[in-house]
Amino acid sequence: MSDKLSHFDDQGQAHMVDVSGKAVTSRIATATSWIKMSPETLAHVTAGTAKKGDVLGIARIAGIQAAKKTSDLIPLCHPLPITKVAVDLSPDETLPGVHIETTVKTTGQTGVEMEALSAASVAALTVYDMLKAVQKDMEIGGIRVTLKDGGKSGRFEA
Amino acid sequence: MSDKLSHFDDQGQAHMVDVSGKAVTSRIATATSWIKMSPETLAHVTAGTAKKGDVLGIARIAGIQAAKKTSDLIPLCHPLPITKVAVDLSPDETLPGVHIETTVKTTGQTGVEMEALSAASVAALTVYDMLKAVQKDMEIGGIRVTLKDGGKSGRFEA
Amino acid sequence: MSDKLSHFDDQGQAHMVDVSGKAVTSRIATATSWIKMSPETLAHVTAGTAKKGDVLGIARIAGIQAAKKTSDLIPLCHPLPITKVAVDLSPDETLPGVHIETTVKTTGQTGVEMEALSAASVAALTVYDMLKAVQKDMEIGGIRVTLKDGGKSGRFEA
Amino acid sequence: MSDKLSHFDDQGQAHMVDVSGKAVTSRIATATSWIKMSPETLAHVTAGTAKKGDVLGIARIAGIQAAKKTSDLIPLCHPLPITKVAVDLSPDETLPGVHIETTVKTTGQTGVEMEALSAASVAALTVYDMLKAVQKDMEIGGIRVTLKDGGKSGRFEA
Amino acid sequence: MSDKLSHFDDQGQAHMVDVSGKAVTSRIATATSWIKMSPETLAHVTAGTAKKGDVLGIARIAGIQAAKKTSDLIPLCHPLPITKVAVDLSPDETLPGVHIETTVKTTGQTGVEMEALSAASVAALTVYDMLKAVQKDMEIGGIRVTLKDGGKSGRFEA
Amino acid sequence: MSDKLSHFDDQGQAHMVDVSGKAVTSRIATATSWIKMSPETLAHVTAGTAKKGDVLGIARIAGIQAAKKTSDLIPLCHPLPITKVAVDLSPDETLPGVHIETTVKTTGQTGVEMEALSAASVAALTVYDMLKAVQKDMEIGGIRVTLKDGGKSGRFEA
Repeated sequence: MSDKLSHFDDQGQAHMVDVSGKAVTSRIATATSWIKMSPETLAHVTAGTAKKGDVLGIARIAGIQAAKKTSDLIPLCHPLPITKVAVDLSPDETLPGVHIETTVKTTGQTGVEMEALSAASVAALTVYDMLKAVQKDMEIGGIRVTLKDGGKSGRFEA
Repeated sequence: MSDKLSHFDDQGQAHMVDVSGKAVTSRIATATSWIKMSPETLAHVTAGTAKKGDVLGIARIAGIQAAKKTSDLIPLCHPLPITKVAVDLSPDETLPGVHIETTVKTTGQTGVEMEALSAASVAALTVYDMLKAVQKDMEIGGIRVTLKDGGKSGRFEA
Repeated sequence: MSDKLSHFDDQGQAHMVDVSGKAVTSRIATATSWIKMSPETLAHVTAGTAKKGDVLGIARIAGIQAAKKTSDLIPLCHPLPITKVAVDLSPDETLPGVHIETTVKTTGQTGVEMEALSAASVAALTVYDMLKAVQKDMEIGGIRVTLKDGGKSGRFEA
Repeated sequence: MSDKLSHFDDQGQAHMVDVSGKAVTSRIATATSWIKMSPETLAHVTAGTAKKGDVLGIARIAGIQAAKKTSDLIPLCHPLPITKVAVDLSPDETLPGVHIETTVKTTGQTGVEMEALSAASVAALTVYDMLKAVQKDMEIGGIRVTLKDGGKSGRFEA
Repeated sequence: MSDKLSHFDDQGQAHMVDVSGKAVTSRIATATSWIKMSPETLAHVTAGTAKKGDVLGIARIAGIQAAKKTSDLIPLCHPLPITKVAVDLSPDETLPGVHIETTVKTTGQTGVEMEALSAASVAALTVYDMLKAVQKDMEIGGIRVTLKDGGKSGRFEA
Repeated sequence: MSDKLSHFDDQGQAHMVDVSGKAVTSRIATATSWIKMSPETLAHVTAGTAKKGDVLGIARIAGIQAAKKTSDLIPLCHPLPITKVAVDLSPDETLPGVHIETTVKTTGQTGVEMEALSAASVAALTVYDMLKAVQKDMEIGGIRVTLKDGGKSGRFEA
C-alpha cells in the first residue's frame, strides 16, 4: 500500500498516471452493492409474473454497459479493453432488497476495480429507477471492492 | 404513491414512459452519498497543501458531468434539459470520510432524482479512484433521494 | 413532399437545418424491422426456459437506448427531448425470425422518424449479436418508417 | 457452430462473455446493406453537381464512426481496438438505390462482425436522413455478414 | 459585463449555473478559427480531383457533431436543444490555409457560444488529422467568438 | 514525410487507415495552445483565493477527458489504449493569458498527436467557458504539435 496519491504529480496537479511501463497482465476485480427497500417493493421484483425478471434483467444490462463507460465517468481512469463483465443481482428478503455482485476482467496495464464499482453502482441506480414509482426512500449502499488481483500491487481481498 | 411500476406496460415489457402529456414545470431533486475511509486516508484529502483541494474538486466535476450523462447510464431515463447542477463534498472526521450532497434542477416533463443520484454516486466513485492508491477497503453508501419537488406526484422530502 | 434536400445549402454544403422557426408540436413516428433466422435459431428465442425472455428483453433495451443516441449516430440530426420510446419484438415462425416495431414521441421542433429507425435497427442488431454463436447468416431487413405525424409536412402513413 | 447462446450463463443470465483466454489474432469482418428508393430520389444522389458527393460522403463518415461506437450500441459487445474501417457506397439504378459494403479489422480477442454490421446499418440510416425530405417510404435491408475470419471459429463466408 | 465568474459559488466551488429562471429565447452565436499550412499542403485541399472536397467535407461534419457534444466536452456547459449548426470552411492562399466560420442557434435558456467555439476547434483539428501525413507543423489559431445575441446580456459582436 | 493523404483511398474516398500491420510500439506526443485575455481577466485566474485554482484545475480535467474522447471527436482517428495524459496550464502575465502544454502516451499501432491536440484545444475552450462572464473577446491560438515520437515515421520535434 502506497502512502502517496498516484493521481497527482509533485506539484499536486492531477494527471492520468503513466502506466506505459507496467506489464500487460490478466487482471480481475469484483465489487458489491445493495439497494434496500420495503417488503412490498421487493414483492414487485420477486413476485409472480413475466414482469418479475425485467427489473433485474434491465439493471444487469445497465451495469454491464456502465463498466464499459467507466473511463468516461471517472476523469482519471484509463480506457481498458475489458474482456469480461458479469453482474449478478439477488433478491434478499432479509435485507429486504437486492444484493449485487460484479466481476470484471481485462488483459491490460492497469486494474479494473473502478469498472467493477461503476457496474455495481449503476446496476443499483437502475433498480431504483425501475421501482421509484412505488417507493422513493430506497437506499443504496455497501459499494466496495471485494477482490482485486493481477497487478504488481498483488492480491487484495475483502 | 403508485402501486404500479410505470416502466412496464400491461404485458410486462419495459418501455420509456410516455411523458408527452405531462406539464412542463420547474423541478428540483437533491440526493446524498458518503464514502468512508480511514483517518489516515482522510488526511490526504484534508491536510495541508495545494493538493488538498484537488480530490474534492475533481469529484465535484465528475459528479456534475454524471448528472448530464444520466439518460445514457440509466436505460429508461428521459433525456432532460438540465438547468442547474451543484455537488457539495464535505470532509467529516467523525465518519471518517466525505459527505456528498447534490442538487439538480430542470424545466421539463419529468423529475431529476435519477440525475441527482447519478451525480452523488459518481462523485463518490471518483473520490475512491483518487484515494485507492492508499486505501482499497473504502466503502460508499447512503445514496438516497432527500428531496424531489415540482411534478404532479407532489413534494417528497426525506 | 419537397424536391430539395434540406440538409444542403445553396452551395451544396451539408448543415444541420435551421428549425428554430418551426413550431414546438407533439410529434410521433413509428418504424419496423425484422431479422430472419433458421427455425432452429428461433427456437432458442421462443423455447422453454427463463432464458427465453432475455434475447428480446435485451434487444428492447438496446433499441430504447439507441433512440436516445440518434443525434450522436446520424450526423445532421437535431438533439431532441424524447418523451416516449417503445420497442416491441414478436417472434414469428412463418418468417422465421423476429418482427420489431418501434414508437417514439417528442414535443419539439422536428420529427422523430430517425429515432424510430435507429431503435428498430439497433434492436435487430442486438438480436443478431445474441444469436450469432448459433447462426451467422441471419439477415436484417424491412427497416422503414410506418407513421410520422405532428409536423408541418403532415401525416405520413405506410 | 455452437448450439449454445454464449451471451447467457447456465442460469440464463446475460453477461459479457469472458474472452480473456482467447488468443490475440488478426480479425476481419465484412458486411453489406442496401437502401431502396425511387429513381427520382436516386437522381438526387447521382446527378450532376458538387452536391452529389455529399450524401454518400456523409454516410461513409457516419458508418465509420458507428463502427467505433459498436460496444456502446450493442449491450454485450466487447470494446475493441479497431485497426481499420472502410465503408463503400455504390449507387445502383437497377435497385434502384445504394449498395453499402463495410470492412472492419482488429487485432484482438474477439471478432468484429458487429462493428461491420453497425457501420452498414448506420450508413444506410444516414442516407435515409439525407434524402427523407424528398422520399419517406425508402426501405433499408440486406444487412448481413459476408465474411468473418481470424478467430478460433474459423472462416465464415456468405 | 460582469466582474464575477458565474461558474463559481460564494465558496469558490464550481457548479453548473442555475439558468432555470432565465427566459427561453432565440439565441445565436458565431465563431471562427483558422489552420495555417504550407502552400504545398493547401494544394492537397484545393487542387484537382473528386478527392478535394473530402477534407473540408469531413471537417464540416466533425464540426457539426462537435457542436452537439459541447456539454459533454466542457464540464460546466448546459445541455441545449440546438436548432441549427453551420460550419463553413474556405481555403485561403494568402494565409495559406483554411478559414472556418461556425454558426449555432438554439431556443433555450443559455447561450451557444461554446457550441460555436467547439465546432470551430474540432473542424480545424479534423483538417489537421486529414493532412498530417504530409505536414506536421501546421498551426491552429484565431479561435474566438464573433457574434453572440439573444440573451439578457445583449448583443456582442467582434 | 509522405506526399499522399493516407486517409483517402485510390478513389479519393475517406477511410480509417489500416494500421493492423504496424508494430505495437511506445508512442508519445506533446502539443501546446494558449488563450489570450485582458490583465483584469487573468487576475481572476491568478489572484488571491482558494477559488483561483479552480479555473485551471477544471480545464486540466476537461483536457484529460478530451484526450480520451479523441476517436469520437475526429472521424477517422483510431481508438487507442491511452496510457498517460498530462495537461499543464501556466498563467503568463506577458501574454497575458494562459499557456497550455499536453503530453499523451500510448502503447499501440498509431500515434497520439491528435489526442494531445484535442486535450490542448478543449482545455483552452474550458478556460474560455470559465471566464466568459467577465470577457467575451478572449482568443485561443498556438495549437500545434511540439513532439511526436515512437512510430515508423520517426521523431518530429518543433
